[in-house]
Amino acid sequence: MKQPSVTIIGSGNVAFHLGLALKESGFTIVQVYGRRMERARWLADKVSAAPADSLSAIHDGADVYFLAVSDDAIASLSQKLKLPGKVVAHTSGSQPTSALQTVSAKTGVFYPLQSFKIGRKVDWTHLPILLTGEEEVLAQLAPLAHALSKHVAVITDAQRSALHLAAVFINNFTNHCFTIAREITDEAQVDFTHLTPLATHTVKQALQHDTRDLQTGPARRKDEQTIHHHLSLLADEPALRAVYESMTRHIQAYYDKA
Amino acid sequence: MKQPSVTIIGSGNVAFHLGLALKESGFTIVQVYGRRMERARWLADKVSAAPADSLSAIHDGADVYFLAVSDDAIASLSQKLKLPGKVVAHTSGSQPTSALQTVSAKTGVFYPLQSFKIGRKVDWTHLPILLTGEEEVLAQLAPLAHALSKHVAVITDAQRSALHLAAVFINNFTNHCFTIAREITDEAQVDFTHLTPLATHTVKQALQHDTRDLQTGPARRKDEQTIHHHLSLLADEPALRAVYESMTRHIQAYYDKA
Repeated sequence: MKQPSVTIIGSGNVAFHLGLALKESGFTIVQVYGRRMERARWLADKVSAAPADSLSAIHDGADVYFLAVSDDAIASLSQKLKLPGKVVAHTSGSQPTSALQTVSAKTGVFYPLQSFKIGRKVDWTHLPILLTGEEEVLAQLAPLAHALSKHVAVITDAQRSALHLAAVFINNFTNHCFTIAREITDEAQVDFTHLTPLATHTVKQALQHDTRDLQTGPARRKDEQTIHHHLSLLADEPALRAVYESMTRHIQAYYDKA
Repeated sequence: MKQPSVTIIGSGNVAFHLGLALKESGFTIVQVYGRRMERARWLADKVSAAPADSLSAIHDGADVYFLAVSDDAIASLSQKLKLPGKVVAHTSGSQPTSALQTVSAKTGVFYPLQSFKIGRKVDWTHLPILLTGEEEVLAQLAPLAHALSKHVAVITDAQRSALHLAAVFINNFTNHCFTIAREITDEAQVDFTHLTPLATHTVKQALQHDTRDLQTGPARRKDEQTIHHHLSLLADEPALRAVYESMTRHIQAYYDKA
């Protein structure tokens, strides 16, 4: 089967990394679209494609069209873009496949589950690429995905939605727990690095085991005296107190149920 | 200076690991107290000490007395224990030094900041041991701490209290974020391991950088559409919704202020 050729709509983080990876894997990138020509040309040059800065300049010479843009932009671009008969896929974890329904009848999602930054190298080999679409669409998306990564799976819109929500807990909220810990220690003028071994231990364990078996602490022990003391330390910070309280109550309810 | 000798009051996780580590570092363990003789003897045998199962059997033949028991037990044991003139230290992160004031005039805290389990090996060399007490007390605790670990610091009660609270965020709440992510993916019947690379990446970054510079996600971007969508996915789980909402609002307020 002929390798599908690709046009990339977008020139941000995901467009950049996806374009480079596809180019390196030997795929032909036909066009790169960016709202500003300067930016479109910058990425188009890197992947030996033609730049485009207007939607009307996007022609039908490619097999697969990736909408690798922000969630807001998916909605607004979809209004204007017509690519009938072409396979069109977005790369967003939070948008349904139907976001593209006005663009083409052959729509899908090509979701690389990772946080991208332009300056940072991406290890595509182990990056989960999660595909959604009808069989005909998957037939075009799968070879692209498998060329980039060993971790490819087909999921539904609802499953991708759940993964995106779970990723908020795993990435954003975990990260913010570290930030809160840093703020608490800064406030008390005590060295944050006293917590480094515990943090290392915690995350190592969390990656190796089922965290349901690892849960400790005052909430798990129902140590109301310590919980009360902690809440009193947060008396002046109602928003932080709400985080502590909701997390504690959820841990308690969760293990009560179990 | 003569090496201080030690009596350990307690036979749980911390007592076990502390006793073994002190014994291995060449300190003399005089007695081990446990509520049940069987248990006291078990640990006493391991550290070549005499077992005791009544408080009245604890004699004044040691230099330093460690109260390595649960927070509740610190309060109740302190009522009954009199060791005038002796250095007495507890090992709790959440209790003030004053919890021991009825036991002796020479009180302190010897807080190893790590979560202990009896079956698990502890790397004492890098385990932060955080000391609190007057100079005379620190003179006895410091040689013990330095013999075990390279990471020893003197902190105040308020600083230990802050570290203990911060540890709840770094350890307990981070761990529970992983559990929640697992529940969400289980519920949607999608493979949790799709999130493993993101989790690895998140925790690696969190340990190497200031997490305040790493925060991403809908809360940080103020992407109210995605937040709204996520909250609607959690409509049937008010306790979990409260976690998502409080964490999101705190992230927003935090970066608004910054």
